[in-house]
Amino acid sequence: MGILDNVNNVSDLKKLSNAELDKLAQEIRKFMITHVSKTGGHLAPSLGVVELTLALHQVFNSPQDKIIWDVGHQAYTHKIITGRKEKFSSLRQYKGLSGFPKLAESEHDCFNTGHSSTSISAALGMAKARDLKGDKYKVIAVIGDGALTGGMAFEALNHAGDLKTDLIVVLNDNEMSIAANVGAMAGYLSRLRTDPRYGKGKDEIEQLLNKIPKVGPRLLKTAERVKDSVKYLVVPGMLFEEMGFTYLGPIDGHHIPAMKSVFESAKKMKGPVLIHVLTRKGKGFKPAECNPDRFHGVGPFDIQTGNVIKTEAPPTYTEVFGDALIELAEQQENIVAVTAAMPAGTGLAKFAKKFPQRFFDVGIAEQHAVTFACGLAAQGFHPVVAIYSTFMQRAYDQLLHDVAMQKLPVVLALDRAGLVGEDGETHHGIFDISYLRHIPNLVVMAPKDENELRGMLAWATKHSGPCALRYPRGPGVGVELKDGFLPVHLGRGEVVKEGKDVTIIGVGPLVYDALAAAHQLEQKGIEAAVINPRFIKPLDSGLLVRYAKKTRRVVTMEEHVLAGGFGSSCLELFNKYCPGIEIDRIGLPDTFVEHGAPDLLKQHYGITADGIVERVLARFPEKADFMKKGAK
Amino acid sequence: MGILDNVNNVSDLKKLSNAELDKLAQEIRKFMITHVSKTGGHLAPSLGVVELTLALHQVFNSPQDKIIWDVGHQAYTHKIITGRKEKFSSLRQYKGLSGFPKLAESEHDCFNTGHSSTSISAALGMAKARDLKGDKYKVIAVIGDGALTGGMAFEALNHAGDLKTDLIVVLNDNEMSIAANVGAMAGYLSRLRTDPRYGKGKDEIEQLLNKIPKVGPRLLKTAERVKDSVKYLVVPGMLFEEMGFTYLGPIDGHHIPAMKSVFESAKKMKGPVLIHVLTRKGKGFKPAECNPDRFHGVGPFDIQTGNVIKTEAPPTYTEVFGDALIELAEQQENIVAVTAAMPAGTGLAKFAKKFPQRFFDVGIAEQHAVTFACGLAAQGFHPVVAIYSTFMQRAYDQLLHDVAMQKLPVVLALDRAGLVGEDGETHHGIFDISYLRHIPNLVVMAPKDENELRGMLAWATKHSGPCALRYPRGPGVGVELKDGFLPVHLGRGEVVKEGKDVTIIGVGPLVYDALAAAHQLEQKGIEAAVINPRFIKPLDSGLLVRYAKKTRRVVTMEEHVLAGGFGSSCLELFNKYCPGIEIDRIGLPDTFVEHGAPDLLKQHYGITADGIVERVLARFPEKADFMKKGAK
Repeated sequence: MGILDNVNNVSDLKKLSNAELDKLAQEIRKFMITHVSKTGGHLAPSLGVVELTLALHQVFNSPQDKIIWDVGHQAYTHKIITGRKEKFSSLRQYKGLSGFPKLAESEHDCFNTGHSSTSISAALGMAKARDLKGDKYKVIAVIGDGALTGGMAFEALNHAGDLKTDLIVVLNDNEMSIAANVGAMAGYLSRLRTDPRYGKGKDEIEQLLNKIPKVGPRLLKTAERVKDSVKYLVVPGMLFEEMGFTYLGPIDGHHIPAMKSVFESAKKMKGPVLIHVLTRKGKGFKPAECNPDRFHGVGPFDIQTGNVIKTEAPPTYTEVFGDALIELAEQQENIVAVTAAMPAGTGLAKFAKKFPQRFFDVGIAEQHAVTFACGLAAQGFHPVVAIYSTFMQRAYDQLLHDVAMQKLPVVLALDRAGLVGEDGETHHGIFDISYLRHIPNLVVMAPKDENELRGMLAWATKHSGPCALRYPRGPGVGVELKDGFLPVHLGRGEVVKEGKDVTIIGVGPLVYDALAAAHQLEQKGIEAAVINPRFIKPLDSGLLVRYAKKTRRVVTMEEHVLAGGFGSSCLELFNKYCPGIEIDRIGLPDTFVEHGAPDLLKQHYGITADGIVERVLARFPEKADFMKKGAK
Repeated sequence: MGILDNVNNVSDLKKLSNAELDKLAQEIRKFMITHVSKTGGHLAPSLGVVELTLALHQVFNSPQDKIIWDVGHQAYTHKIITGRKEKFSSLRQYKGLSGFPKLAESEHDCFNTGHSSTSISAALGMAKARDLKGDKYKVIAVIGDGALTGGMAFEALNHAGDLKTDLIVVLNDNEMSIAANVGAMAGYLSRLRTDPRYGKGKDEIEQLLNKIPKVGPRLLKTAERVKDSVKYLVVPGMLFEEMGFTYLGPIDGHHIPAMKSVFESAKKMKGPVLIHVLTRKGKGFKPAECNPDRFHGVGPFDIQTGNVIKTEAPPTYTEVFGDALIELAEQQENIVAVTAAMPAGTGLAKFAKKFPQRFFDVGIAEQHAVTFACGLAAQGFHPVVAIYSTFMQRAYDQLLHDVAMQKLPVVLALDRAGLVGEDGETHHGIFDISYLRHIPNLVVMAPKDENELRGMLAWATKHSGPCALRYPRGPGVGVELKDGFLPVHLGRGEVVKEGKDVTIIGVGPLVYDALAAAHQLEQKGIEAAVINPRFIKPLDSGLLVRYAKKTRRVVTMEEHVLAGGFGSSCLELFNKYCPGIEIDRIGLPDTFVEHGAPDLLKQHYGITADGIVERVLARFPEKADFMKKGAK
């Protein structure tokens, strides 16, 4: 019987000795690895902070004290020791535990996270709320060195340093964001890590200073300033000190007593404090320690070998994109690629190896990524900025104000567009059509399959203005990849199947669902035309209006919210050119979508071939009746 | 005859001596004050950088060298000496010179700006483009100390410090953003300004260090480290140095020879360089020097007194909002207010004076502003975040991911919604309905007049979830302000006028244009109903559908792009509940809107009572003919 068996909540944790905590940490690692090997999840980040989490929860009193986990993918230990151990096997599954902190899940989750770099802002807001109410609790933001490169973290540090209220920022420095970290800040932190002063006292420095002989009044002031500058020697984190923070560290993030002692000191300090904790991503699981990048977010894997359990599946859109971009870049010297800390996730890792000079990882900094690309484009390059649909939300203003207003030839590759599945509501890419299609000068495309993705990318890298390309997470349709690039024409869609009774327009790979539905409908005597719009903006008005007029009934289908989405755009079109036709829009309702396997979610929301059939039959009551009878 | 008469382009400028440049600076100030006193404009920022601009253009060779003006409101001198002197009287007027740098206007404007903190990103992109092509030109970003608090500027510094390419950042430090600057960075810069080391050499420090006697091996390393730390004494800008920049300064931004000499040095340096220049906002015009805030962006004014020329007009929405919020805050202790460097612009200055503890100016940091408000809201407060519609674009992800997903009671007060006029395309608030209405859990409102603004604000500060309120720039409708607060009910609109032939739905104050149109239409025998929807989301479905069914014809009207806007939302509604009715949508086309007086712009786009009448008559050809005949 282990210690973990008796730890169900933080009150159980409080009683443990340091030695017991160390043992508990190992048990939690085992527990976590066992479960995540089945469910998949953010293993490496969570393995890195087991001791840190235990130390935090022993020193601070959650839920009175507020602990905010930046990004939130490292919160598994936090979940396990705050009453969710029993449910842990349901992690990331439909109706199960979320992979991220959730207000609704526990009183210990005081702020929802998912996107990066929000924790210090939220923590500072809570700290001021506490001050205004005269409360006394502590607020702690736990933020990785990667998340620290996000601009809003800096905005918050800047504000916190000014407000001077009590606030604790724990910098979880593992020299990684998701991939190896980039940026000058990373260099600075690395200098702190390797600083020879680490662990040493001021004694010998003072000894040395005392050797300076007495000086006359002219040099006295200078001497004082030299002594002042000693603070730069004994306080290595001057960058944070200059921002108004008390810097403590660096300390070993796997040494529980060391952390507890620093946390206790921090608790007594006035004003904002930054505690620099050094951790190892993937700690305690060899495969993850060696490949923290691969084990950042991982699917089910074999515990013995660390090998991800492979399911037979076609290459992902991400891979097809990455390979196509290399092919194009070989022909076109003006192509450069930009990512925001996601070289592997966006499929650019191979590109980076092949064209190191033409590849830019800017850190977790989507805003800068987009405007940096504008600078490249303004001077003759054709940048491809690959960022997940959900993270591109961070750069909405830059897309509009810097890319589109200047009509710069920047390609936005929005990976993970649509339902992403297990990461849930903070990560679904279901808003991009609505946040993109009203931006003037912007072209928006969605490929129906791998070959079309290749063709559209080729077209986009030659188009004279800005383009966005949205494609889903995960494996492609599985079509055979063709040599060369499918020709694409601006604003021109494709008729996939002819039909006279109803027109089904599917966005992206939903074209295949539409086709499946059309075949089902044929069985019921309904001839459905299927259209692949290819361009979400500009729409192929001629084609769409022709078919709408011909069939008088249209069904649109998108893996996206309905409000302001693709179907909404069709309504605008048809209202102008062919009012009076019947339109059904299939898509997501006005709600945030929970986590769960994509197929389950699609089924729940009716974004399936069956969903289309049902909607169409509702427009043909006689056929529907016929079918029902037939079913009997 | 002055020097300015002979300076038409940068080549003329190159020939001038320092003494002549000083004289030219004075002439440019006079020229600028004379013109801006008539056109209005960003006077104080532009007055502050006259000498800086002249020095930059003498040392660097625009357009080969690229100068990017952050925000761009300080670029008047740049415009005057790059071929646009003659057109300067058309500044900010319809079809005239833009108040901001514009690619289309001059080859010397290498990047469009308007929103803050983009310049370093763009400059870094250009610098890398230069490197990749093997070109040799210089890239210079000129950024204010205010803009430096924007997170994306930090993201860019972080990346630049890592890339180590040649790049010059000129930090134009006037201790102001728009209002007095806030944040720890401001404190840091102020310490640099007043640093006793300013202007001193390293000589006496070296002298002192030489006095340290020889030490044994044990202390040798420490001695070296003390010597190392001398860099902290001779290089005051260590924060920037730690970020990978060479720091030069601070230097007097009104001393041309001093700046030229530093710029010449910077030109020869490798890697990123930050030049800290101290300027005075409003320099050379007493009223602006004393009130840089009021003269940041100013309307026409009297040159002698500096008094703004007042036109008879009702109080602005901004003022009504600010006063109402004070009234509410007196009753409701949980109300707090947040602004992003715009206390005066958003009408919160009085609130700040009255409730200094409950007011937060976070600096130019919209992302942090919104998530900071979430932290306050999560702990029981009801924050009102007042940010212009166009700047709220920066916080789109935070609205969605932090506010709406957690259903936090945050009120977003979107001032300057609609056409803002002379500031032009970077500043029009014409996208907010489209970027807000697809966000789940968010309520979006638009008041038709001052009393409704008060009522909606009161309602919003009591609503349990997130709300956005959009209201226009400038004077209100002029209705008499009522005591108390108009009652508002979630999702309930208002019938302003009954009618059976057509329903006109106007968003916000356009309700009054709709009403005027309805009266005109009555003359032609058409009875128009006028509806004030009040809620853009959720729509008053019952009311709107009832009137749509009754009149069979609907016209929607919004000062906003049509794509995904209010009318689009009505199309979605009517398609579901009353398909087949005739809908006309009045609003802005799919294009960025230029600068010019709001009335001219509205007329151009038909967003007027006449515009409605015309559209309605097109649906009643018999009445239209009748009218034409009558007109003859």
